[in-house]
Amino acid sequence: MTPKTQLAELTEGVINSDHRRIGRAISLLENSQSDDAHMLLSELWPHTGRATTLGITGPPGAGKSTLTSALITHLREQDKTVGVIAVDPSSPVSKGALLGDRIRMADHYTDPDVFIRSMSSRGHLGGTSEAAFLGMSVLDAAGKDVVIVETVGVGQSEVEVRSMVDTVAVVLQPESGDSVQMLKSGIMEIPDVLCLNKSDRLEAEKTRRALKIFLNAEPEPTPIYVETKSLDNLEIQELWAAVQEHRQSLGKEGLHKLRRSNLAEQMSNMVASFLLPAIIETFTDGDEELVELVETRNIDPLTVVDEVIKAR
Amino acid sequence: MTPKTQLAELTEGVINSDHRRIGRAISLLENSQSDDAHMLLSELWPHTGRATTLGITGPPGAGKSTLTSALITHLREQDKTVGVIAVDPSSPVSKGALLGDRIRMADHYTDPDVFIRSMSSRGHLGGTSEAAFLGMSVLDAAGKDVVIVETVGVGQSEVEVRSMVDTVAVVLQPESGDSVQMLKSGIMEIPDVLCLNKSDRLEAEKTRRALKIFLNAEPEPTPIYVETKSLDNLEIQELWAAVQEHRQSLGKEGLHKLRRSNLAEQMSNMVASFLLPAIIETFTDGDEELVELVETRNIDPLTVVDEVIKAR
Repeated sequence: MTPKTQLAELTEGVINSDHRRIGRAISLLENSQSDDAHMLLSELWPHTGRATTLGITGPPGAGKSTLTSALITHLREQDKTVGVIAVDPSSPVSKGALLGDRIRMADHYTDPDVFIRSMSSRGHLGGTSEAAFLGMSVLDAAGKDVVIVETVGVGQSEVEVRSMVDTVAVVLQPESGDSVQMLKSGIMEIPDVLCLNKSDRLEAEKTRRALKIFLNAEPEPTPIYVETKSLDNLEIQELWAAVQEHRQSLGKEGLHKLRRSNLAEQMSNMVASFLLPAIIETFTDGDEELVELVETRNIDPLTVVDEVIKAR
Repeated sequence: MTPKTQLAELTEGVINSDHRRIGRAISLLENSQSDDAHMLLSELWPHTGRATTLGITGPPGAGKSTLTSALITHLREQDKTVGVIAVDPSSPVSKGALLGDRIRMADHYTDPDVFIRSMSSRGHLGGTSEAAFLGMSVLDAAGKDVVIVETVGVGQSEVEVRSMVDTVAVVLQPESGDSVQMLKSGIMEIPDVLCLNKSDRLEAEKTRRALKIFLNAEPEPTPIYVETKSLDNLEIQELWAAVQEHRQSLGKEGLHKLRRSNLAEQMSNMVASFLLPAIIETFTDGDEELVELVETRNIDPLTVVDEVIKAR
């Protein structure tokens, strides 16, 4: 365990927005079940809750990193400090492409008022959702005005962005046929802000129409619809305006209610995921025989599940 | 609770492949935490384990239902009996489209040797994955030779098909740009069989090339690649041949090992999901004050999580 003086130094560093210390704190919290993580969070937590938090999600290729990068520039022009947690799928195959996306953010890496952290979507003890949420808390404690989490969002993915942020923005691009259908079918997260990126492309009209149909069928409050354009003249201010519109629509009490509900969900998931390793162990290291008895049809799975729960 | 005689009747009905009773049994097991479900499964489980199980998954619009329907016809020509669990996302918006897909299967509804059951992907106490797995067990106990689960597969979705079946087939269609990228990035399930449907379309070449690149980068054993065509001359036998090739590659001991590992995963998830409602209750009905203390920054989330786990 880290000695108390080191912990105090780390806490102080984060609160003073020392980027090296912020990085170390996020790494420490990636293993959310360690004692160090617990001690650090208890120090940092009183300093959180001030940031505006935003989740940017959508299918691969929609332009999430480009938008995030432009949003950082837009926010910096307003003298706002920014923190970003960018969750990558961690397959080695895709690393090249994804690092390429990250390069678009490179302009901001030298800005002392912007902190960007890439996080793999695999290999977290306790799940990516937890690691990203705790990472955002570090950036919040460090006093960043706006904290963004960017994730590849498809389906009820491992990374549930909904319970991490005040506002969820889903970004699509023209011809995202599958994606629009996923939205319609409820497989993809229903956003607070729905952004059609690259909307100046010729083929955007079809997607625009499909999204309008989706929005008309949604119950109130319907997502706020916004369009951004390709590369040089993104009109990123539209996206930020939509985020602010959503926050205002919540009202002060609405925001608190949302945050309480998000925290309850985060904590429920943490309890379940902290318990899971011990459960899996029951069936593997603990008692392979039990699984064999089920496979040989000597005992049924629900009876085993009951017994395991009772034996806890 | 259902009286014992009714349970005996239900069990007998399922084993004799009485379709009305099969339907009732699947409904009963959709609420996997009920006493009835437990009693029924303990009766049925000894009769399971004989079916060849297959998961068909892929993005919306790839043609999964068309392929499933053609596969049923192909299997019936070989005198094999078939059971299907088709998992639908349950958003009311999409119901029309999805029912449309189902209609393609309608030819088989009157066949006494084919049982097809649609299942909503929401609103199951204990999760869709459990309900689908238990539904497949009913069809297995009923003596269906081949049991298929068809799901909309995107991302590490709620419905993890991997641990339900012997063979996972992912179906894509030409121009599934997002989908191919999801496969590459490891977001989408890595299949045993990768099927490019509608491969006779002009635009198929680009997707074919992208899939070949993906397959070349995969570690051994690489997915078996297969193509099917549009509508009238699907060449469905190719898909079935690939499924059989995968089974043969496993070998007898390999299949048992896979099934034990799948059962361990199913049971671990059941234990976790049986525990979850009580956990959520801790934070909502149980003690909203606890969440409020976290939101007002009087106590940090990990400390609360620890306390909840200790108090269990």
